[in-house]
Amino acid sequence: MESGTTNTKIRVAVVGASGYTGAELVRLLVCHPAVQISTMTADRKAGQNLGDVFPHLASAEKNAGLPGLVALDAVDWDDIDVAFLGLPHGTTQSVALALPRHLKIIDLSADFRLSDPAAYAQWYGHPHQAPELQGEAVYGLTELARSRIRGARLVACPGCYPTSALLPLIPLVEAGLVDTGDIIIDAKSGVSGAGRAAKEATLFAEVAEGIHAYGIATHRHAPEIEQGLSAACGSDVVVNFTPHLMPMNRGILSTLYLRLANGATAEQARAALAERYAAEPFVRVVPEGVAPATRHVRGSNHCLIGVFADRLPGRVIVLSVIDNLVKGASGQAVQNMNLVCGLPETTGLEQQPLFP
Amino acid sequence: MESGTTNTKIRVAVVGASGYTGAELVRLLVCHPAVQISTMTADRKAGQNLGDVFPHLASAEKNAGLPGLVALDAVDWDDIDVAFLGLPHGTTQSVALALPRHLKIIDLSADFRLSDPAAYAQWYGHPHQAPELQGEAVYGLTELARSRIRGARLVACPGCYPTSALLPLIPLVEAGLVDTGDIIIDAKSGVSGAGRAAKEATLFAEVAEGIHAYGIATHRHAPEIEQGLSAACGSDVVVNFTPHLMPMNRGILSTLYLRLANGATAEQARAALAERYAAEPFVRVVPEGVAPATRHVRGSNHCLIGVFADRLPGRVIVLSVIDNLVKGASGQAVQNMNLVCGLPETTGLEQQPLFP
Amino acid sequence: MESGTTNTKIRVAVVGASGYTGAELVRLLVCHPAVQISTMTADRKAGQNLGDVFPHLASAEKNAGLPGLVALDAVDWDDIDVAFLGLPHGTTQSVALALPRHLKIIDLSADFRLSDPAAYAQWYGHPHQAPELQGEAVYGLTELARSRIRGARLVACPGCYPTSALLPLIPLVEAGLVDTGDIIIDAKSGVSGAGRAAKEATLFAEVAEGIHAYGIATHRHAPEIEQGLSAACGSDVVVNFTPHLMPMNRGILSTLYLRLANGATAEQARAALAERYAAEPFVRVVPEGVAPATRHVRGSNHCLIGVFADRLPGRVIVLSVIDNLVKGASGQAVQNMNLVCGLPETTGLEQQPLFP
Amino acid sequence: MESGTTNTKIRVAVVGASGYTGAELVRLLVCHPAVQISTMTADRKAGQNLGDVFPHLASAEKNAGLPGLVALDAVDWDDIDVAFLGLPHGTTQSVALALPRHLKIIDLSADFRLSDPAAYAQWYGHPHQAPELQGEAVYGLTELARSRIRGARLVACPGCYPTSALLPLIPLVEAGLVDTGDIIIDAKSGVSGAGRAAKEATLFAEVAEGIHAYGIATHRHAPEIEQGLSAACGSDVVVNFTPHLMPMNRGILSTLYLRLANGATAEQARAALAERYAAEPFVRVVPEGVAPATRHVRGSNHCLIGVFADRLPGRVIVLSVIDNLVKGASGQAVQNMNLVCGLPETTGLEQQPLFP
Repeated sequence: MESGTTNTKIRVAVVGASGYTGAELVRLLVCHPAVQISTMTADRKAGQNLGDVFPHLASAEKNAGLPGLVALDAVDWDDIDVAFLGLPHGTTQSVALALPRHLKIIDLSADFRLSDPAAYAQWYGHPHQAPELQGEAVYGLTELARSRIRGARLVACPGCYPTSALLPLIPLVEAGLVDTGDIIIDAKSGVSGAGRAAKEATLFAEVAEGIHAYGIATHRHAPEIEQGLSAACGSDVVVNFTPHLMPMNRGILSTLYLRLANGATAEQARAALAERYAAEPFVRVVPEGVAPATRHVRGSNHCLIGVFADRLPGRVIVLSVIDNLVKGASGQAVQNMNLVCGLPETTGLEQQPLFP
Repeated sequence: MESGTTNTKIRVAVVGASGYTGAELVRLLVCHPAVQISTMTADRKAGQNLGDVFPHLASAEKNAGLPGLVALDAVDWDDIDVAFLGLPHGTTQSVALALPRHLKIIDLSADFRLSDPAAYAQWYGHPHQAPELQGEAVYGLTELARSRIRGARLVACPGCYPTSALLPLIPLVEAGLVDTGDIIIDAKSGVSGAGRAAKEATLFAEVAEGIHAYGIATHRHAPEIEQGLSAACGSDVVVNFTPHLMPMNRGILSTLYLRLANGATAEQARAALAERYAAEPFVRVVPEGVAPATRHVRGSNHCLIGVFADRLPGRVIVLSVIDNLVKGASGQAVQNMNLVCGLPETTGLEQQPLFP
Repeated sequence: MESGTTNTKIRVAVVGASGYTGAELVRLLVCHPAVQISTMTADRKAGQNLGDVFPHLASAEKNAGLPGLVALDAVDWDDIDVAFLGLPHGTTQSVALALPRHLKIIDLSADFRLSDPAAYAQWYGHPHQAPELQGEAVYGLTELARSRIRGARLVACPGCYPTSALLPLIPLVEAGLVDTGDIIIDAKSGVSGAGRAAKEATLFAEVAEGIHAYGIATHRHAPEIEQGLSAACGSDVVVNFTPHLMPMNRGILSTLYLRLANGATAEQARAALAERYAAEPFVRVVPEGVAPATRHVRGSNHCLIGVFADRLPGRVIVLSVIDNLVKGASGQAVQNMNLVCGLPETTGLEQQPLFP
Repeated sequence: MESGTTNTKIRVAVVGASGYTGAELVRLLVCHPAVQISTMTADRKAGQNLGDVFPHLASAEKNAGLPGLVALDAVDWDDIDVAFLGLPHGTTQSVALALPRHLKIIDLSADFRLSDPAAYAQWYGHPHQAPELQGEAVYGLTELARSRIRGARLVACPGCYPTSALLPLIPLVEAGLVDTGDIIIDAKSGVSGAGRAAKEATLFAEVAEGIHAYGIATHRHAPEIEQGLSAACGSDVVVNFTPHLMPMNRGILSTLYLRLANGATAEQARAALAERYAAEPFVRVVPEGVAPATRHVRGSNHCLIGVFADRLPGRVIVLSVIDNLVKGASGQAVQNMNLVCGLPETTGLEQQPLFP
């Protein structure tokens, strides 16, 4: 279904194409008018076709002529302009270090999200292998970091939970509207966020018809959220971040319980967010009284934000929804690639949400 | 499958047997060794057999000989000892007023939960039709009100959300361990709590593969929770109560975000709850580090409670799970009937959770 | 996100935009480069914005400037080139009759699917209101009726089940490979096929965690399938068609149990289908040994077909999957519009399936 | 919650308690009035408490005093009356061979289901390790083999699919009402049937929101069904058996497409089944026009059967539903134990289905 001469297209590598975020990248990129998927890598599944690993992409493979999966060390980087890295946490840093400097790198792992090497070591349990790149990496929360992303060589795409939490929180913190000492984030996620590795905890029969919290007070996305908020207000912020696993494939809802600061009202919080995102194609504050639902962003790069006054005086409830695999991962990655490559930011991301 | 002579059994009426809580009552009572279901009523479905309305109970009907559904005004109350009322909110009060005084009444509606007529009128939008009974009603949160329930003629069974929230909260509030001005209840519920009436909002395609909050800062279970906590601490309490609808049939998880009071620690909160519920057959504090899951109580009258220290200093996270149709409705109703009738409290409620 | 001058675009009306198929049409058309949505109608929801009725389309509304919902009689048909009719069965025929002749009509209802007025009257319980149009209508199973569709003014888009069954069956019947007296179609469908009207039978709690057959030997899609097969072989065909409702939003799997004819083998059946669909962008025969899954076509206009030899001698098992709202309804409708309007058939339909 | 003196109870061992069928056995046996769970074994999880492995049973553990999990070789068989074997296929035969002869063995694996050593070797890929026991084993389809089960020392409990298929099929075949050369079984199963081992294919994100067939023409339950039917009619029967995996935890629906024999009608087929099962507490033919649903047997030992005339002349559609973990595994195992031990057959199995 591709058209045009391929030599004018950006040649991309999808490194780690056998995971859910890799497949989601291919789903988006195969329809991206300015991109050509030049190579795709996989580890244990090298040698297979992507359509064997992900049958939902076999038709794209047939129609668009996708390359087969190869091992990482078989890639000729001279032919690549942009590398998307969808590798497991901890393995990306050494891979990134070995890549030639002409490449633009869009990293979907956690390896370059924390800019402080000590924080990385504390939360990930080992020293960072590429601290020099860590300093170079730009945290790719697109709507709030455009100018830095445009000039970046290495973009560290935010985690799914941090994306859902920081998009509403940073404008409120920057405007001094909320008390940064009392931020509670109750997040609910679909199961695809846990990846495709076979684990008892994510079997259908262990997840369906139930909900539970996990990683309580220990989840690695907490420091990432705190880093973003600390930068926004200029002092160290600690948050409550409590993720829950629930029976759906995709989606994150973050319910934020916030104390208003400086006499602010919920209406002012709503107005601040509405103004901040008024011109954004992907972020939208929903009308008063409407509760955003994850099903209303499924498959799209959208983020919806709702704001409600609390019955507890001086407090506000803010709700935010994204698709964890799109705005929370591969969609935002493509959005960042568009910025890095000087393309209109919405290119290839215009799909509407799939409902029901 | 019933045995024994029926004249020694408690004769019960299930009023409103065509809703989910009514069906759940029948599921439990048909296996209850001391009870005989003498009559079952329905409104539009009077004249049908219960097995036509709820095919999962047709085998019980065949084996145990259940009576057919009759209209409410066809019931001969002289032959009934205990009436379970599973009617819609607002309609129960006048029905209860008309019942003969020899009956023990176990009400599952919201009509007698709020003891203050003014609070009732404010939240339900009309004056109470039976304020004299309102004063007589005992709020049936079994584990915390046994002595009052034993002597009651009219038991108002708690709402599903209040049950899940108050079981962990009241002991903490009574012990002065938490700040009653900063109680946040993020609750997640299965869809059966919305009842069997056909509504667009609870269609499969509107609920599956998604989550959203609803009734934000306006849900009628908030004043019920506040009433319980206010009684526990002797002063007016207001809470944040934010319910969410999620794609599962049964279950409620309440995630409580609490500020510790008087220098208390999370460990002390855990110890207080563990001690309070040590001898309870249906309420259990799970081991440290374990997150309770709704799937671990499904179909049972159990409540599981977990306690975690927050990373935010001076705060604690408490999680509580129940099956909304059992401990949150029909199971607790049977538990209360057992108390009212002088039976061992666990009679007929010994089923284990169904997992997966 | 629209580009180009609007006066060169096809001006379409979406009649009945407040149902699932209407919303799905909008999802597709809003990204269609050659189309402008000029008007959208709804009955009870006229006067609202589509984003209020379908929040997942509110971002499209904001970005693309969708018109508000109007009543059918408020439409100025002079400004419309193509009308998609997504009205309930039985109501479309009189509406279609009243439309001006310059309009191309793509009908998604059942009203013009059966070409025989007597068959219509038998299965739908009343005489057809527009038999003159019935004769004019072209049955829009795109891949198998392209030349007739290209010249049509009124295209009757096939039902979801018939699409999934006829795409594999017609080539086999035309080639004389299967016994037309012994065709068994066991179909499994997601719930969105039942529409958005509030009914007890499609509530979440009535559908989740279960499966059952319905419309056994009485479903109205049976005569539609039989009409297609009878035309393919030139004699009257009767089939077993047994649909099942299962807990998923989208998707149909038809498992076909067929007796081979004239000494044919399963391998010949596979080869016939593979050859017939070799050049099709939307229909694909999956590799030998692979079972097609509905999740591999979700959100796309794809149909996947698998073929297996049976252990019963002389029989073959053929499996076919589609997304009931796309290839089974709105996607095929757009595909037909493309044909009718002389556009490349895949225009606006290049989205890949959404998995997971 | 158990009462009475334990020395009058049957002492049972649950071998392989860490799988779903093992947990389901414990769920049932802990409420069984005539049984005491004396030992539970696990392989990798020996040394843990069952409540750590299956938190839904932790309350039972607390209340009923369950023993901890031990390794198989740590069991003192002198203290055991009945051993339930819930081990993986292929490993049970050597275990069973080593058990002392005083034990009654209720086996839930496939090891003793096929009585013909050659058939076993063909379908399971290795020679049987205990052919002498194979001859001794009684196939435990309870309703159809009571007298043999009563006297058995080793009961081979049927597979879940065969149970759902044979309960309706055997009476029809025995009565000569159906053509044994044209039996098509389209079966749909929940995911718990695949067990608790971590596999990519049964991850939530690989199963939810979709359906697909698997094991087409190769599933090991086919020869088991064929063995039962061959015995019923006295000649070799081959069937089409096509299982499908669908997104629910529990339940099997088998849709049987049958050709009537000897001029029989669908009504005669219905009458034959209704008569055969008229007095059964667990098997019931549902009223004419009613389609049995898996959700109506969930958690119970029930089997529901529906019968419909086909539109294809001379054919009948029979539908059968069970809970795969109860009547399809652990419930039927307990039913068989009751027979073997001379207890009323329904003892401990009176729980009603859990709906919704």
